[in-house]
Amino acid sequence: MRVSTYASHSALQILKGAKQEGFETVAFGKARVRPLYTKYFPVADRFIEGTYPEEMLLELNAVVIPTGSFVAHLGIELVEKTRVPYYGNKEVLKWESDRSLERRWLEKAKLRLPRVYDDPDDIDGPVIVKPHGAKGGRGYFLASSPEDFWGKAERLGVQNKEELSGIQIQEYVLGVPVYPHYFYSKLNRELELMSIDRRYESNADAIGRIPAKEQLDLEPNTNYTVIGNIPLVLRESLLMDVIDAGERVVEAAEKLMGGLWGPFCLEGVFTEELEFVVFEISARIVAGTNPFVHGSPYSWLRYDYPVSTGRRIAMELKQAEDEERLDEILT
Amino acid sequence: MRVSTYASHSALQILKGAKQEGFETVAFGKARVRPLYTKYFPVADRFIEGTYPEEMLLELNAVVIPTGSFVAHLGIELVEKTRVPYYGNKEVLKWESDRSLERRWLEKAKLRLPRVYDDPDDIDGPVIVKPHGAKGGRGYFLASSPEDFWGKAERLGVQNKEELSGIQIQEYVLGVPVYPHYFYSKLNRELELMSIDRRYESNADAIGRIPAKEQLDLEPNTNYTVIGNIPLVLRESLLMDVIDAGERVVEAAEKLMGGLWGPFCLEGVFTEELEFVVFEISARIVAGTNPFVHGSPYSWLRYDYPVSTGRRIAMELKQAEDEERLDEILT
Amino acid sequence: MRVSTYASHSALQILKGAKQEGFETVAFGKARVRPLYTKYFPVADRFIEGTYPEEMLLELNAVVIPTGSFVAHLGIELVEKTRVPYYGNKEVLKWESDRSLERRWLEKAKLRLPRVYDDPDDIDGPVIVKPHGAKGGRGYFLASSPEDFWGKAERLGVQNKEELSGIQIQEYVLGVPVYPHYFYSKLNRELELMSIDRRYESNADAIGRIPAKEQLDLEPNTNYTVIGNIPLVLRESLLMDVIDAGERVVEAAEKLMGGLWGPFCLEGVFTEELEFVVFEISARIVAGTNPFVHGSPYSWLRYDYPVSTGRRIAMELKQAEDEERLDEILT
Repeated sequence: MRVSTYASHSALQILKGAKQEGFETVAFGKARVRPLYTKYFPVADRFIEGTYPEEMLLELNAVVIPTGSFVAHLGIELVEKTRVPYYGNKEVLKWESDRSLERRWLEKAKLRLPRVYDDPDDIDGPVIVKPHGAKGGRGYFLASSPEDFWGKAERLGVQNKEELSGIQIQEYVLGVPVYPHYFYSKLNRELELMSIDRRYESNADAIGRIPAKEQLDLEPNTNYTVIGNIPLVLRESLLMDVIDAGERVVEAAEKLMGGLWGPFCLEGVFTEELEFVVFEISARIVAGTNPFVHGSPYSWLRYDYPVSTGRRIAMELKQAEDEERLDEILT
Repeated sequence: MRVSTYASHSALQILKGAKQEGFETVAFGKARVRPLYTKYFPVADRFIEGTYPEEMLLELNAVVIPTGSFVAHLGIELVEKTRVPYYGNKEVLKWESDRSLERRWLEKAKLRLPRVYDDPDDIDGPVIVKPHGAKGGRGYFLASSPEDFWGKAERLGVQNKEELSGIQIQEYVLGVPVYPHYFYSKLNRELELMSIDRRYESNADAIGRIPAKEQLDLEPNTNYTVIGNIPLVLRESLLMDVIDAGERVVEAAEKLMGGLWGPFCLEGVFTEELEFVVFEISARIVAGTNPFVHGSPYSWLRYDYPVSTGRRIAMELKQAEDEERLDEILT
Repeated sequence: MRVSTYASHSALQILKGAKQEGFETVAFGKARVRPLYTKYFPVADRFIEGTYPEEMLLELNAVVIPTGSFVAHLGIELVEKTRVPYYGNKEVLKWESDRSLERRWLEKAKLRLPRVYDDPDDIDGPVIVKPHGAKGGRGYFLASSPEDFWGKAERLGVQNKEELSGIQIQEYVLGVPVYPHYFYSKLNRELELMSIDRRYESNADAIGRIPAKEQLDLEPNTNYTVIGNIPLVLRESLLMDVIDAGERVVEAAEKLMGGLWGPFCLEGVFTEELEFVVFEISARIVAGTNPFVHGSPYSWLRYDYPVSTGRRIAMELKQAEDEERLDEILT
């Protein structure tokens, strides 16, 4: 068995982790990034050009580790039909990508979610507007009233309610972004807290460096394009809340879609009242785990050797192979 | 001898460090967090429910490592009377908790402190107001004039000077927060710089992500609830200043209260003039050391194995045990 | 052969790295910081007081590792004349310190640079103004129009165009700061991405914590005094861009000045359009590598042991010694 993934997002970590556990590795993707995975960071034993070279992966006896970039590049429909063994539950894909299903899932898990406005004219406080298909947070904007909303929506070509489909208007909850990364071992029926990060976004994390007076002259639009990630630890008295939230998400997934296993992430903010308000779930490895190639403050509490989320995936695959239980975790 | 602490704050790190040094560990605290210390992160060999199970700890031959949460939950008067051997000097407690004693201590150590206003009507520049007993920075607010102060104080139920007792009004010094973590070994008479962090606060670290224009609409109140910690390194030419400050604090404590040993932290900001202005001292381990479970950029300069502050405490206990000097460091 | 450097900036890391590779180490500098390098962090086997004790260093068979502080304290003219073997290409010094030469270099490397305004009266958008010889970002300011520029320049004593020499007026590009750290091995003809940080600046990173309303009262001046560094990872799909940029800088240096080898850093921002706009090059080790004493997320992908940039330098020196090729990398 070989471990493969699409050459982007968190592939360096996934492939490094697989090698640490003794697997041969395969990366596939754009020709341009071949040197990144074979020369600058020699983590891929093989590099195949192409979005998804199915026949070659099957011949190589490869397992695919899905990432956000893999799903975005292939599209969910194609991913659902792939024949290469896939680590994780493919049923999750549609629950995660459809906003109302996602909300049903997170509500069943009893998470605190921000209010959603169906009608922009109901806006009665700060909101964040997420256009359909906005990648990496580009195109998100803030508004504080219906007038403000329509003024800004026009720039996106939205002029009336008929054109709103796919645009999400969410209560803007004031708080600091916190992204806990989980791993649920289906083999051991155990949840682990792997690490925590916050995103580093352009220009949301740039505008605060400009004095208010100059900002009023420049009038920058807020934007949430993810540029990188910064490692965090959470106040220890909040960890149990965050772990319980993860447990309830797994439990809800078992009832709704046959389970969620492997890495996932809850994306939210902590308010000044110490509440964790969750905006989204990423039901696979997130790039926020990338600072922790050599382990995180949390994984070092549990393991006596460096465990990244990428390595943790490989540990699960190895255990499944040893116990002849691969069919339980691959779909 | 067993190492014990209250299950919160930095207990994961303290107990992990104790185990690394070969001690058996005991956590005590709320039933709800038992799994955090025994299952998710198996660092506690035993978990006892209760705020402070003195008899059981005595029977187990346990030493208590105090943390901010331990002191906050028991209250200083109770802590002073505990019979379980306590790592550190209990005399420090009253010096740290009484603002005027704390100030006398830090002034004796020749630290640069922010100006304190006794009378709100003297406010002639930006100030930060800290209500009595505000935990984790909740309830702090900024004001820039007497009028501004009274307007905001009213929300806390303070309407005149008679009600001001316990409220501290401090000069707001513009600079970036820097929290150096020290360890003073009483056995070796040596100060160590263990690590440095900055706090991650809600909503103080959230508002800068909102453009000035929107802020003026939203009018968020500033708040300093600690949510987590971010690792930092300091400009190398400032390290000697920071270490000298720590040395002077230890020296002053020897004169005033019979010494300060073990971990402590100076909480301050660095201004654009490269001055370190100190707001407070925490005379024990701070949660800001939590990012460094596997060592910090500073501890890796000194040690060839991973040394967290929690482990450094355990190293001191072990040395004291080996040299039969426990009575010098326990009170 | 001994490894030496000036006792500041990133000397702790450089000397620690040299010791890890088996070299004896020498620090030279101010008497005041001797304990930092010999007692608190015992990384210097010898400490010599003085800015640059050339005769002693020659006697000790020392190699000098240049840092920003070393160059700033001696001045470029003196550095160019030093007789102690110097790691790196001294030709680079004048290209880096002269803004028009630096720009020629970076343009030849096809980097995206911010626009430069020769005449303040041409300012037609946000600019950042960098006075001549401003160290650590002190004295930088923002302006958004010619009127704004002249108002602020007056405080620096600049009242007309005749006094502008040495003042650089750059387009202010809105984006988040990202500083990738490279190492070019001249021996192996290979570029490595060592780590990435962002600077922590006073007061640029402090003002965002003050609500816009209070900022308008306080009117803080923006300032970019470097206080420390925060570790970062970059979005994986941007790494190839950043590596290619580094490769082109090395290539351009080969054509223009006989090469650039050892550590260097591109200082820039990533915009919301995912463009890397570069402001400056530091043609030697930067302090932004200091968080990574025990390796970075990137160096752990390449090496199975902790490699800081300081240690990477020592590895290169050792290889050169072993292969009798020291003359290729020392000047």
